[in-house]
Amino acid sequence: MRVHTLVIVGVGLIGGSVALAARRRGAAERIIAVDRDAATLQLARERGIADETVPTFDEVAAAANLVLFCTPVDVLADEVILAARQCQPGTILTDAASTKVAITRSLAGRLPADIRFVGGHPLAGSEKQGLQHADAELFRDRVVVLTPAASGDERAGILVGEFWEALGARVRRMSPEQHDHALALTSHLPHLVASALSGAMPPEVAALTSSGFRDTTRIAASDPALWRGILEANATEVLNALARFEEQLGRFRTALRSGNHAELQELLTAGRDFRAALDRKSS
Amino acid sequence: MRVHTLVIVGVGLIGGSVALAARRRGAAERIIAVDRDAATLQLARERGIADETVPTFDEVAAAANLVLFCTPVDVLADEVILAARQCQPGTILTDAASTKVAITRSLAGRLPADIRFVGGHPLAGSEKQGLQHADAELFRDRVVVLTPAASGDERAGILVGEFWEALGARVRRMSPEQHDHALALTSHLPHLVASALSGAMPPEVAALTSSGFRDTTRIAASDPALWRGILEANATEVLNALARFEEQLGRFRTALRSGNHAELQELLTAGRDFRAALDRKSS
Repeated sequence: MRVHTLVIVGVGLIGGSVALAARRRGAAERIIAVDRDAATLQLARERGIADETVPTFDEVAAAANLVLFCTPVDVLADEVILAARQCQPGTILTDAASTKVAITRSLAGRLPADIRFVGGHPLAGSEKQGLQHADAELFRDRVVVLTPAASGDERAGILVGEFWEALGARVRRMSPEQHDHALALTSHLPHLVASALSGAMPPEVAALTSSGFRDTTRIAASDPALWRGILEANATEVLNALARFEEQLGRFRTALRSGNHAELQELLTAGRDFRAALDRKSS
Repeated sequence: MRVHTLVIVGVGLIGGSVALAARRRGAAERIIAVDRDAATLQLARERGIADETVPTFDEVAAAANLVLFCTPVDVLADEVILAARQCQPGTILTDAASTKVAITRSLAGRLPADIRFVGGHPLAGSEKQGLQHADAELFRDRVVVLTPAASGDERAGILVGEFWEALGARVRRMSPEQHDHALALTSHLPHLVASALSGAMPPEVAALTSSGFRDTTRIAASDPALWRGILEANATEVLNALARFEEQLGRFRTALRSGNHAELQELLTAGRDFRAALDRKSS
């Protein structure tokens, strides 16, 4: 599988890593990086991540075969709609945003008939942002969720899947609703929790934190604006996930308050078991 | 500073690491490891962590100058009281338990007049338990909190502090109450939160977790029995810390439900700022 011209809009950690991975693995003949930020484009040139670097999509729209949007979730739909009008028939558009229902709804009925959009979300990345942390191996053995339209062009979904597989990822397909439900639990809730935990600390205890605190709150160091957009775009599912988590906290509170040893042990064991199973799977 | 005979009771991750560190840095002339578990003692001999390995303290009590108890918090006080009766006058006892008020109260008035106990807590360790993970550098640049009795022998507190400094640690002194208040926030609450988050996950979402979830829940993989003891020993402070955290969660919920962008951004920024400051301090 080899894309002729891959255009990546937004070359931060994810976009930059896709460019490096596609180059290393020969997944695209030509790579064009689009970014509005001049310093990012300069760094993109210095790192040699693309054959061409431009500030706006319209300059390269006609050449694009596959366009990957790695822009924040709250501006993504508008960018895709604008870009779609400038592309050649048959161009495939995809994205890497952390929520899928909002973008899918925003695009419904608003793209030219001969342009396909396939929603995507690589479950990779970290609290480190920006092109300076881009890594050609970021997607190796990572899951990429695709949410192809049920009634869309099947070929587009297959091609985008093959592209991610060429970068070393494992592709899973599901509906946007399934994605947003699951990721509210496994990604958006943990982010909210890590941030709330970190933000609840009085400054004077900072010197008494150790590696456990640092692990638990690591993702709280992420960009607030980016995560505000993600949490808001998936607010209903995040609130449901939060309610589920608060119920579990309530069980801990009751067990601790009433001195119920067996219940507290059971709650800690449930947490241990789910977590330990993840390590066994990944090793 | 050099202890003549150091006895370590319980050679898991912490006790084993103290033995290795004391050996490497010459902080004790002779090291005796005490552990009831035969397999652990066998491993202690194989790794050569001590000059002598014995199953019970009474065999070596007469030789001890400094005794470090690294046993679970719920059995620690009884062990210290029993051991103290067998020691020579002037022997100094200390511990490495994660809570300090309960042990201090349990020991009050119950030790021989010529035996000193100095409460201690190295803020080191991880979700990995056991002597197999012991590391001579575990305490380097880590904080060790000491809670010497206000009316006790000052010399004992100084000696225990010098011992930990000899292992590379930074010593901070405070009251048991100050310790348990701060650690409820920075250690016990994060543990409870990580465990509740992990335990709240339905099994089918396991395949959709990524590094953010793994970081946030890493400490949930710890031993449930050990942590049940810690949470119970510090239940009042942990419940206060939990209430503080739940208030912060409530702020997130309100902001998300009402679509209050500015408030959500502010909450995420507070979480980012506390966490990011920790990285700046440690680098």
